[in-house]
Amino acid sequence: MLRIEHIGIAVNSLEEANAKYEKLLGRPPYKTESVSSEGVNTSFFQMGESKLELLEASKENSPIRRFLDKNGEGMHHIAFEVQDIHVEIARLVGEGFELIGDGPKAGADNKLVCFFHPRSTNGLLIELCQDKQ
Amino acid sequence: MLRIEHIGIAVNSLEEANAKYEKLLGRPPYKTESVSSEGVNTSFFQMGESKLELLEASKENSPIRRFLDKNGEGMHHIAFEVQDIHVEIARLVGEGFELIGDGPKAGADNKLVCFFHPRSTNGLLIELCQDKQ
Repeated sequence: MLRIEHIGIAVNSLEEANAKYEKLLGRPPYKTESVSSEGVNTSFFQMGESKLELLEASKENSPIRRFLDKNGEGMHHIAFEVQDIHVEIARLVGEGFELIGDGPKAGADNKLVCFFHPRSTNGLLIELCQDKQ
Repeated sequence: MLRIEHIGIAVNSLEEANAKYEKLLGRPPYKTESVSSEGVNTSFFQMGESKLELLEASKENSPIRRFLDKNGEGMHHIAFEVQDIHVEIARLVGEGFELIGDGPKAGADNKLVCFFHPRSTNGLLIELCQDKQ
């Protein structure tokens, strides 16, 4: 665990939220990106060594759509940068944390990512991410 | 807005959550602190330039107790360090963000803090904080 890479925030409308977060943070998003495999459109705001990632559902029945339907807008996940995602997955699974799915997959921002279930982490959806080599 | 100062996570038991987050993050909390005016016991884990703050209710009818009763454990707020909290409050109120209460007050970690309501920020409870001089 090296640092907080980003904090993911689920929003209903990326366009509306981008305008609001530009006012809040005093800077515009430095990029937007769609990840069709995850059914999500994203935007990124730099904040020191970390980022805020806004997440809008781009299709029905995507994870973000289901989150918004259940919880409304708000914090969705926290992502930690790791040096070796395979080593960290093995360590955390060994400590009893519950990996979602089988292992690392391609995420936004040219990274390998994986998630750990909130029921094993006091209610926090945890992402690990590592830059692709 | 200088950086993410910390992320606040509401937990039922600080003792249990400290043990779990020590495993998750691979490091122990570097301090614990009680803020009796807020009815909260806290612990802090350093993570790069930011911190994770775990929050446990220390009395009934405290804000954290009400949050846990309504939402269960999980992300509670995100705190941004600012250079001048009074200037930032004036700027954000002018942009239409909704300040909770009257202005800065003493928070944990020897800081002046204030909060903005989630209904004005896409569901995110936002804290501003500034080191006391």
